[in-house]
Amino acid sequence: MVERLAAPLDLTYMALADPTRRAILQRLRTAEARVTEIAAPLPMSLAAVSKHIAVLERAGLLRREIRGREHYLSANPQPLTEAERWISEYTGFWERRADALADHLEQQIEERPTP
Amino acid sequence: MVERLAAPLDLTYMALADPTRRAILQRLRTAEARVTEIAAPLPMSLAAVSKHIAVLERAGLLRREIRGREHYLSANPQPLTEAERWISEYTGFWERRADALADHLEQQIEERPTP
Repeated sequence: MVERLAAPLDLTYMALADPTRRAILQRLRTAEARVTEIAAPLPMSLAAVSKHIAVLERAGLLRREIRGREHYLSANPQPLTEAERWISEYTGFWERRADALADHLEQQIEERPTP
Repeated sequence: MVERLAAPLDLTYMALADPTRRAILQRLRTAEARVTEIAAPLPMSLAAVSKHIAVLERAGLLRREIRGREHYLSANPQPLTEAERWISEYTGFWERRADALADHLEQQIEERPTP
């Protein structure tokens, strides 16, 4: 991984490219949680969960708040907006192309001389 | 990377998590191209480009057609649908929560006893 050159979009997609990280994001949808609470249901060590959390934090998808001795994590969906936009613009192109083809065919039918 | 356990969604996001791979997908939006044509404008070796193409193919985002000695690649946007859905369902939750909060506040204002 070329850390220095990673664009925000790279970090977002990289963060999403793992089922554990997607599960952590889903876990934090409804409420904040402590690292130990997030780790409890996951079939891996606390150290492994911490690494996944670090990937999500680097992508800006998690916020960490320290209160006393506890670290509370909450989700920040903001970086997902650009990630969604890239895909929708890309797939939208196909839809527009399909629409344009339909228009073209319709026009051809209309322009056909009546017998 | 845990190759054997990689879900389709993992492969899609992993494929998108690199600017060269996103550039290749954009390049193939309008028309198919040969590997050498795809590699020509990119500032890296043909071998490096081939590796990126392999990642995109593994994610099902490219189709390869062999005619004579030439390999032609074209884009397949289909796997992007699920990748877009995951994000939009996730971000949509926040929008719905904001709407629910607005409704709740509105109801509170309506239920306030008139002086």
